[in-house]
Amino acid sequence: MIKVITSVKNQLIKDLVSLKSSSIKKKENRFLIEGDDLVSLAYENNQLDMILTLEENLSYPDIEQIITSEQIFEKLSNNKSPSKIIGVAHFSNKEIKGDRIIFLDNVQDPGNVGTIIRTALSFSYSGVVLGNNSASMYNDKVIQSTKGAIFKIPVIENISLSLLKDKGYQIISTSLQNACNYKEFNPNGKFVLVFGNEGQGISEETLKLSDVLIKINMDHIDSLNVAIAAGILMNHYRGE
Amino acid sequence: MIKVITSVKNQLIKDLVSLKSSSIKKKENRFLIEGDDLVSLAYENNQLDMILTLEENLSYPDIEQIITSEQIFEKLSNNKSPSKIIGVAHFSNKEIKGDRIIFLDNVQDPGNVGTIIRTALSFSYSGVVLGNNSASMYNDKVIQSTKGAIFKIPVIENISLSLLKDKGYQIISTSLQNACNYKEFNPNGKFVLVFGNEGQGISEETLKLSDVLIKINMDHIDSLNVAIAAGILMNHYRGE
Repeated sequence: MIKVITSVKNQLIKDLVSLKSSSIKKKENRFLIEGDDLVSLAYENNQLDMILTLEENLSYPDIEQIITSEQIFEKLSNNKSPSKIIGVAHFSNKEIKGDRIIFLDNVQDPGNVGTIIRTALSFSYSGVVLGNNSASMYNDKVIQSTKGAIFKIPVIENISLSLLKDKGYQIISTSLQNACNYKEFNPNGKFVLVFGNEGQGISEETLKLSDVLIKINMDHIDSLNVAIAAGILMNHYRGE
Repeated sequence: MIKVITSVKNQLIKDLVSLKSSSIKKKENRFLIEGDDLVSLAYENNQLDMILTLEENLSYPDIEQIITSEQIFEKLSNNKSPSKIIGVAHFSNKEIKGDRIIFLDNVQDPGNVGTIIRTALSFSYSGVVLGNNSASMYNDKVIQSTKGAIFKIPVIENISLSLLKDKGYQIISTSLQNACNYKEFNPNGKFVLVFGNEGQGISEETLKLSDVLIKINMDHIDSLNVAIAAGILMNHYRGE
C-alpha cells in the first residue's frame, strides 16, 4: 500500500490538485487535510483514505501511502511552509439525531464557522447545520479551525430551518432587536439555536420561523463576534 | 490640508510604506488602518492623523488629506482589493484604571487577541494587557479583528502580572489542571483574569502568581478556542 510518486504530471497528483476547487471537493466528498493533528483525528474517526508523506510513516499502517516530493507538497498545500503530512479524507454520511442543534444562518467567515463547530462538540450539542449560504464544511479554513471537531460531530448543509421546526424543535434565534436577555429564557424540550450573519444578523425568513428571540446585553459596542456570542449561549443552554 | 501625491517615490509615501514593519510602527506609534469603519472610529476617538483617498473626502474636515493613486493604495494596502480609504492613526497613551483587567499570557493568534479586546469592551472591562509575547497591538490583524474596539478601551503591552498582583489585584487564571469550575468561584474586589497560550496554556511563572485557577467543563475535546473561553468567562465575571 506504499507507492512512490514524484512526477507532478502523475494523474493521481493532478486529481489531488483539482481538490483545491470547492465544487470538486463537495462533488467527490473528498478533500485534503494538513498536519498530524487533523490527519490522526480523521484516521481515528474512519474518515482518512490516503496519506502523502516525504518519508515512510508508520502511524497509519492500514491506509494507502504515497511517498512524494517537496515540490508536490508545495503544489498541494495551502500553507507557505507545508506540513510534513497531507491526508485525503472524506466526511461520513451523517444525520443529526438529538435534542440540541446549532443552525448557522449565512455565517460567512470560515474561522467563525469552524470555531462554532469546535465549541458545539465541546459542549455536547447534537450537530451543526451550515444553512443559508454559510461557509462550507469543505472550506479549508473551516476544517482547520474546527481543530478536528468536524470529524467527531455531525455537520450538515442540506436541512432547512422550517423542516426542523416541523419536526418539533423550538427555534431560538439570536437578535439585537425585540429580544429578551438569554438568562430570562429556558428552552423546554428539543431546540435549535440560530446564529445569523456577521453584519446583518438573522434573515427575515429565519425571524418568521423563530419561536423566541434572545440577546446578550452589551455596553459600548453594538455587537459581539458571532463565535463569541455562540460560545456564551451554547455554554448557557447546554444545561450543565 | 489637502495634497495630491501620485509618485511612489515621494518621501511621505515611502515613510508610510515603511509602516508595514511592526518594529517601525511600534517605535513611531503610527500605523495604517483601512476602511471607513476603522478610520471613523479612530477619528471619533482622536487617534486619526491623516487620511489617504482616491478622491476628496468630506467626512474628516480637520484631518490632513492626501489624494493619491490606485497604484499607491495597492502598495500601502494589506488586502487584495484595497479599501477606498486608508488612515494613519496612533494609539493614545493609556493607563488601565479600574477593577477588572484582562491579561493575555502569550496568546499568539492575532484574530484571538483582537476578538478578546472587542469582547472586553463589550463587557465593560477596564483594559487589556498583551503580556508575555502575545500578538502586538500594532499587528494589522489584531487591529482589524477588534473592529475598532482598540481605539475605545485601554490596551497596553508593558505591565507585568507581578506588578498587578503587587497593586492588590486578585489573579484568576484559566487552566485545565487543578482548577475549579468557574461557577464555583466569585472574585471579591479587583481582579485580573488571565488567559494563556493556545497550545500550552498559562506559563509556569503565571501559575505561581495565580491566586485561583478556574476552568470551563468540556466534553469530547480537551480545549476551547481561547477567545471563546475568554468570552464565556468575561461574560460571567462582568457581574451583570
